[in-house]
Amino acid sequence: MNHPFQHAVIIGTGLLGTSLGLALRKHNLAKLITGVGRKGCNSAAIAQQRGAVDRATDDPAAAITSHPADLIVLCVPIRQFPDIFRTLAPKLAPGTLITDVGSTKFQIMQWAAELLPPTVHFIGSHPMAGSEKTGPEAAREDLYNNATCLMCPPDKSTPESAAAFKRIEDLWQSLGMRTVSCNAADHDRRVAAVSHLPHAMAFALMQAAGKNPAALEAAAGGFTDMTRIAGSDPTMWTDIYLSNRDAVLAAINSFSAELATIKAAIERNDENAIRDYVEASRQTRESFITRRRATNAPKEK
Amino acid sequence: MNHPFQHAVIIGTGLLGTSLGLALRKHNLAKLITGVGRKGCNSAAIAQQRGAVDRATDDPAAAITSHPADLIVLCVPIRQFPDIFRTLAPKLAPGTLITDVGSTKFQIMQWAAELLPPTVHFIGSHPMAGSEKTGPEAAREDLYNNATCLMCPPDKSTPESAAAFKRIEDLWQSLGMRTVSCNAADHDRRVAAVSHLPHAMAFALMQAAGKNPAALEAAAGGFTDMTRIAGSDPTMWTDIYLSNRDAVLAAINSFSAELATIKAAIERNDENAIRDYVEASRQTRESFITRRRATNAPKEK
Repeated sequence: MNHPFQHAVIIGTGLLGTSLGLALRKHNLAKLITGVGRKGCNSAAIAQQRGAVDRATDDPAAAITSHPADLIVLCVPIRQFPDIFRTLAPKLAPGTLITDVGSTKFQIMQWAAELLPPTVHFIGSHPMAGSEKTGPEAAREDLYNNATCLMCPPDKSTPESAAAFKRIEDLWQSLGMRTVSCNAADHDRRVAAVSHLPHAMAFALMQAAGKNPAALEAAAGGFTDMTRIAGSDPTMWTDIYLSNRDAVLAAINSFSAELATIKAAIERNDENAIRDYVEASRQTRESFITRRRATNAPKEK
Repeated sequence: MNHPFQHAVIIGTGLLGTSLGLALRKHNLAKLITGVGRKGCNSAAIAQQRGAVDRATDDPAAAITSHPADLIVLCVPIRQFPDIFRTLAPKLAPGTLITDVGSTKFQIMQWAAELLPPTVHFIGSHPMAGSEKTGPEAAREDLYNNATCLMCPPDKSTPESAAAFKRIEDLWQSLGMRTVSCNAADHDRRVAAVSHLPHAMAFALMQAAGKNPAALEAAAGGFTDMTRIAGSDPTMWTDIYLSNRDAVLAAINSFSAELATIKAAIERNDENAIRDYVEASRQTRESFITRRRATNAPKEK
């Protein structure tokens, strides 16, 4: 069988990395798959048991030393990227394609430009797939299917980098993803508005409500939906907030201004202002859902 | 057949009223059911076509003139209650049980004490059932099943009022609801924290995100969940905010203080503070879900 990649190395064998291994396997996209787990943690062994990877190691350098990789995908928390880039850099075969599944892109693209040799290609990817569940046990071969992948091409476009971008785009599309290209700064502002802010809101709502246990007894489906993502992974979210600080702060400010608007209307018993506000929200929500149904509905991340 | 009620009058034939009619019918709780719709609106006729009510009218007084009612349930927006109480008051048979499905209770209990004759019993009910859908077309006979009903007994307890409370409690329990008793002020503070605040957050998030259409393209499941209730009915929510103003403002303030806490941690790049905050939210969410699974899970309202 003719595989698009001879040796794919997945660094990070949690939910996203292990699901990626299962999906690569299912779609015959890589001949050999190596999973790199965290030291002192058996996630790569679990990924191997689940058939997501052929080989399991905890050493990124070892993963590419005996068998050079033509595809490397970073599926670890964002702040581990610089160390991994530094470890891999001296050992990378020219032309290696490197991508990731990180939730922010600007800082990652800067690190890649700074720390990786110019002979390899880093393409930033953000598959909008995931779950509030974590770990290789929660992995699913269809996690990426039917979701959107935001992709950031390198700053300097050359025929080689364009070809590299195309191969990574093909990879995600082979997994059933819809790909959208945007520059890294735009990407980070967008996900701040629709993902990083809503997560901060869910964390804050859960904390506020947690101080009133009797109230929690009265919680219904709306509250449960609003706080589902409050169960997300603390390490991942710490990383996201540190690596997308400015865009997240701007999104929190813009939301706070909106909340202040409806609060002021309630404060002054302004019936028309309250109704207009809720009606405008309802309409925005409806057109969002209508547009969303017309495209591939992106899933959670 | 021996029905607990001879003539139930449902005032308001939207989602909640029509679903109540279907449920009363299914469980043989009332011999005759009259639905009172809004003037110039065919909702009562639709409820009748759906078999939720036997008779349809748009006049609350007419509904109880020819056939005295032993049960009246108000399923209209809260601010219509005083007019309906005034219209019904001179025509109510002694001993009539009156309840409601309103989302706030303090103001309603005050109006009932003030406007209804002392010969009838008003028991405040808040079935935590509903949907972001509206109208008799969306009604379901199982809407109330397996949800929680918060109930407020009258301030002055007498053997008669206790018996009245018991009959209304039996009614909701017959529909498959778990009943929880609490005083009206506590009720309003609790629902402000877990329902009225989350709705305001969803309205504000939808408005903030709506100003960034490109960002909406990147929205995933978390955002969709967080904004589902932004599609709720403007009239109902205007009523709720006007009738539960102080508790809602307090809940918004308490949430805003929490959001400011995580925002400040992000602002000062405080890794430990961010991680601790997200971890605490995750734990609170987990224990909430564990407790919730141990009881009957209340549904949406």
